[in-house]
Amino acid sequence: MTYEELYLQIRHKQSYLCVGLDTDIRKIPAHLQNDPDPVFAFNRQIIDATAEFAVAYKPNIAFYEAQGPRGWESLRKTLAYIPKSCFTIADAKRGDIGNTSDLYARTFFDPSAAGLDFDSITVAPYMGHDSVTPFLNYNGKWVILLALTSNPGSQDFQVQHIGNQPLFEYVMQTAQTWASHDRLMFVVGATQAEQLGRIRQIAPNHFLLVPGVGAQGGSLAEVSRYGLNEHGGLLVNASRSILYASSGTDFARRAAGEAHKLQREMAGFLS
Amino acid sequence: MTYEELYLQIRHKQSYLCVGLDTDIRKIPAHLQNDPDPVFAFNRQIIDATAEFAVAYKPNIAFYEAQGPRGWESLRKTLAYIPKSCFTIADAKRGDIGNTSDLYARTFFDPSAAGLDFDSITVAPYMGHDSVTPFLNYNGKWVILLALTSNPGSQDFQVQHIGNQPLFEYVMQTAQTWASHDRLMFVVGATQAEQLGRIRQIAPNHFLLVPGVGAQGGSLAEVSRYGLNEHGGLLVNASRSILYASSGTDFARRAAGEAHKLQREMAGFLS
Repeated sequence: MTYEELYLQIRHKQSYLCVGLDTDIRKIPAHLQNDPDPVFAFNRQIIDATAEFAVAYKPNIAFYEAQGPRGWESLRKTLAYIPKSCFTIADAKRGDIGNTSDLYARTFFDPSAAGLDFDSITVAPYMGHDSVTPFLNYNGKWVILLALTSNPGSQDFQVQHIGNQPLFEYVMQTAQTWASHDRLMFVVGATQAEQLGRIRQIAPNHFLLVPGVGAQGGSLAEVSRYGLNEHGGLLVNASRSILYASSGTDFARRAAGEAHKLQREMAGFLS
Repeated sequence: MTYEELYLQIRHKQSYLCVGLDTDIRKIPAHLQNDPDPVFAFNRQIIDATAEFAVAYKPNIAFYEAQGPRGWESLRKTLAYIPKSCFTIADAKRGDIGNTSDLYARTFFDPSAAGLDFDSITVAPYMGHDSVTPFLNYNGKWVILLALTSNPGSQDFQVQHIGNQPLFEYVMQTAQTWASHDRLMFVVGATQAEQLGRIRQIAPNHFLLVPGVGAQGGSLAEVSRYGLNEHGGLLVNASRSILYASSGTDFARRAAGEAHKLQREMAGFLS
């Protein structure tokens, strides 16, 4: 999906909601646990319930990996089920030396390898350019690079200064020499909303993937105020607040309600 | 495996060789390609041929992931086949917010999840303490944290200065507040051997996992001169030079020859 196509979806749906598919087998409603593939059965209903309110889906790969081979099968089926009008993100936080990043790129971008064909992948920047650029060798695919994350440990290294700027800003500036805003996004945690104004100066045109709204305590209003640009420029992720809105048979209806509530708020901020 | 047990293996085998199982299905000898599980068939023979010369095995997870579910099955069988006297490393370079790192830890350390029971995992430091400590909640398991890597991109961020020291040193010092040398190792590329003297001052007792000898051009003599300590303190990885010493039916014998050659050199440096 191109930058322009993503923006058209945002305009069309009046939403920049990304639904995080952090599907935890231990939290799936009891009535689905006897399904041959409970994770996919759950995801399918979540996708059906939320697709009109969301422009992106972000499976968190750890949740699938932790199920071994059958988890990868659930992931493959989930990805295939997501409507083609939605942007897909492999939240994998990979990154390794060039020949290994090549293989990670193949895993998530080349359907002939592991059956997966994501639009994008989250990548950790620590190992530098040759750990990132192999993902960019796939035409039309995106890298979403960790910049400033939403967790407490973000304070350990990301905000330490290199010269006169914090590491995460240095990462963002350096990465812009590897790809332009039509192939590169940044992860910026919603718990750091006060930083978003400054980040928008560094990366005025880039999409920012913003986790941390909802269960992690970030404010959608604050994020939208500082983060929106004229092409939307935001993908705000919510996971647990949507997936586990109810643990009963009404989980999908309740998920739709949560997603719709976020979409309505977003429509307000977009106008 | 404990620090002391690892040292005993090093003394016993007179080796600090780690064999990197970067098993590329495209490079496996033709006569194995019709095996129901060519990757495992190859690995099993490599392990049989090298186990007397190696103290550790390091499957590079990307190579298995890129095969989809059957790759994870090859990985599980490979890990189960490695002799218990050898230290095992999941070279996965994971790291995410706490609840997600929990799941990555479960994947690689809890056999009831994905059937895997590695001794250790490589972890990327960018997201800080809560991305790393979930791996340490598993008794007896190790974190091997990226410090200074062997690839060209290591120059982008790792050597940039925070205050008066490069980022990788700052990472090493910070991480020592999370775990001691009996649970924590560092990745230090062999192509950076001249840095090893300084690194030994910062982390005198820690094991260093050193990739980059062989195909990547690092010198075993240099690494050993600066990196060895009184408990060995090194795991030097070789992958391609051993795995692909021959592409014919003699591949295992030739792999044994390469591993034995490295072991003999190591015995010399240990004495």
